[in-house]
Amino acid sequence: MKATVKAHTNIALIKYWGKRDEALFLPTNNSLSVTLDKFYTITTVEFLPALQADEFYFNGELAEEKELMKISAFLDRVRANAKKPMFACVKSQNHVPTAAGFASSASGYAALAAASAKAIGLQLTDRELSQLARQGSGSASRSIFGGYVEWEKGSNADGSDCYAQQILKKDAWDLRILSVEVTTKAKKVLSREGMKRTVQTSPFFAGWLEAVEQDLIAIKEAINERDFTKLGQVVEANALKMHATTLGANPPFMYWQSATVEVMQEVQALREKGIEAYFTIDAGPNVKIVCQPEEEQVIHESLETLPVVQQIHHCRIGPGITYL
Amino acid sequence: MKATVKAHTNIALIKYWGKRDEALFLPTNNSLSVTLDKFYTITTVEFLPALQADEFYFNGELAEEKELMKISAFLDRVRANAKKPMFACVKSQNHVPTAAGFASSASGYAALAAASAKAIGLQLTDRELSQLARQGSGSASRSIFGGYVEWEKGSNADGSDCYAQQILKKDAWDLRILSVEVTTKAKKVLSREGMKRTVQTSPFFAGWLEAVEQDLIAIKEAINERDFTKLGQVVEANALKMHATTLGANPPFMYWQSATVEVMQEVQALREKGIEAYFTIDAGPNVKIVCQPEEEQVIHESLETLPVVQQIHHCRIGPGITYL
Repeated sequence: MKATVKAHTNIALIKYWGKRDEALFLPTNNSLSVTLDKFYTITTVEFLPALQADEFYFNGELAEEKELMKISAFLDRVRANAKKPMFACVKSQNHVPTAAGFASSASGYAALAAASAKAIGLQLTDRELSQLARQGSGSASRSIFGGYVEWEKGSNADGSDCYAQQILKKDAWDLRILSVEVTTKAKKVLSREGMKRTVQTSPFFAGWLEAVEQDLIAIKEAINERDFTKLGQVVEANALKMHATTLGANPPFMYWQSATVEVMQEVQALREKGIEAYFTIDAGPNVKIVCQPEEEQVIHESLETLPVVQQIHHCRIGPGITYL
Repeated sequence: MKATVKAHTNIALIKYWGKRDEALFLPTNNSLSVTLDKFYTITTVEFLPALQADEFYFNGELAEEKELMKISAFLDRVRANAKKPMFACVKSQNHVPTAAGFASSASGYAALAAASAKAIGLQLTDRELSQLARQGSGSASRSIFGGYVEWEKGSNADGSDCYAQQILKKDAWDLRILSVEVTTKAKKVLSREGMKRTVQTSPFFAGWLEAVEQDLIAIKEAINERDFTKLGQVVEANALKMHATTLGANPPFMYWQSATVEVMQEVQALREKGIEAYFTIDAGPNVKIVCQPEEEQVIHESLETLPVVQQIHHCRIGPGITYL
């Protein structure tokens, strides 16, 4: 009745931006990510007959009521499947720098899904785990797998055809991700809220959905052909389009800060010098740079000269969930 | 056979972004501007039987061949209407700081249209002058008029229903425009080229056209009601949408630099303190701020503390063309 799982976070190269069902975390478009080796969550779940309620320890401390309620709601789905009305003690150790703008919910819910399913005795396939993890956080559906991962939006109302799957193993193409933390002052619109406002009010959302279909075709060609230039161009253009949709929302909002734009422009300046760096940006001010191993160091050196850059993390493409 | 005209530049509150006919400068959407008192062009046109070719002096110096060719092509339209095949000497004095990102072509072609028509003896209405000026530079159609001006896109293929008209006199509502010049390093995509690429490739262009219709309705209500908050919100949101379309172009491009975003965020921070400032941005890195007279000074003081701000010009709403 006890299991421990390690799951890594991931970065979307083609963005998840828009839900068709808020409760089931069903997206409006397919997305494509790479799992990252450096950032992960280790979660232990133990179902205990003696417990009167769920318990949740996060980084060694008892979590707040609000966080516990989310975890309990997630465990309810697992308990419903297993038909065992037992409470659990959940202990999570998070190795994801929140300041870097990585959603720790991706690795968090992937680890929780796999650990709780195993602890309660459910035999789930990775695809089923992906669907389960998705119901805690959309991007968690992708963190079940390592390497290059596509999350299928599906079309069924119950989400039964909405899951992620690996499209290329991590060692098949060694790309690097630099996560660039910048100084920041502004408040953040939570991605959940930002996504919702965009779907409901942005005149650009229909264009986004059309464009993402094309981008997915192009990036899969690039992955098949190991064509880094093509991949990089699609990744950067897709991120720009995602952020463009927020500028059309009502009221408009933006995740970029001046420091974000400075890093974006440095990346573009590097390319003008023949160094192939491409950026992507999630729902926050930090920038992630995709590059090839041989140019990782020169890109790092160029970025660390910018006063707005606080820290640079180097990531490789990582594995899927591991049972410890 | 000689006339001198002063015309002011203008700033679009609802942007002109997209052409339906490149040669005739016919736009895909209506736009709405205010003419600015501070920046203008004074142009003298003299048709002289003795000349063997057109001459063009810009700010006291003989202009480059490329500029002369544009002016000559424009004069050809005037000559065709007047059926007088005479060459002209054109002298333009420009009082528009190019670094501030104001299109001097707006005041330039408005002045040239009025001066050349008068010099050659054509009796044109302001509406006809607006159509003529438009064929030199789209935004010049608006600079014929003072105050608040709307440029009708029209639907005829020959542009006969495509002209600007005044919708409110300048003294009817005293708003102020601060033009904020920022430090810049990046190359600029010319607005003509940027517009074209956006129309042809951006998945957001259809959304832009829909949105601008709504924005025009809202801003005209705001102008009628003298509702500054409503006007400011529409102005800022419309500029953000215009810039969003460029992020979807292929290849994507953006006019903002980090300094641009810094000023945008300062404007938003001012609003959080209860000071009503709203920004708009044209096809370049500089920012224009719309405000009410009583808050002009405090906004200036706040902006000049930003190291990226190089210069701030203060403008009032200005008059239409004047024959000198």
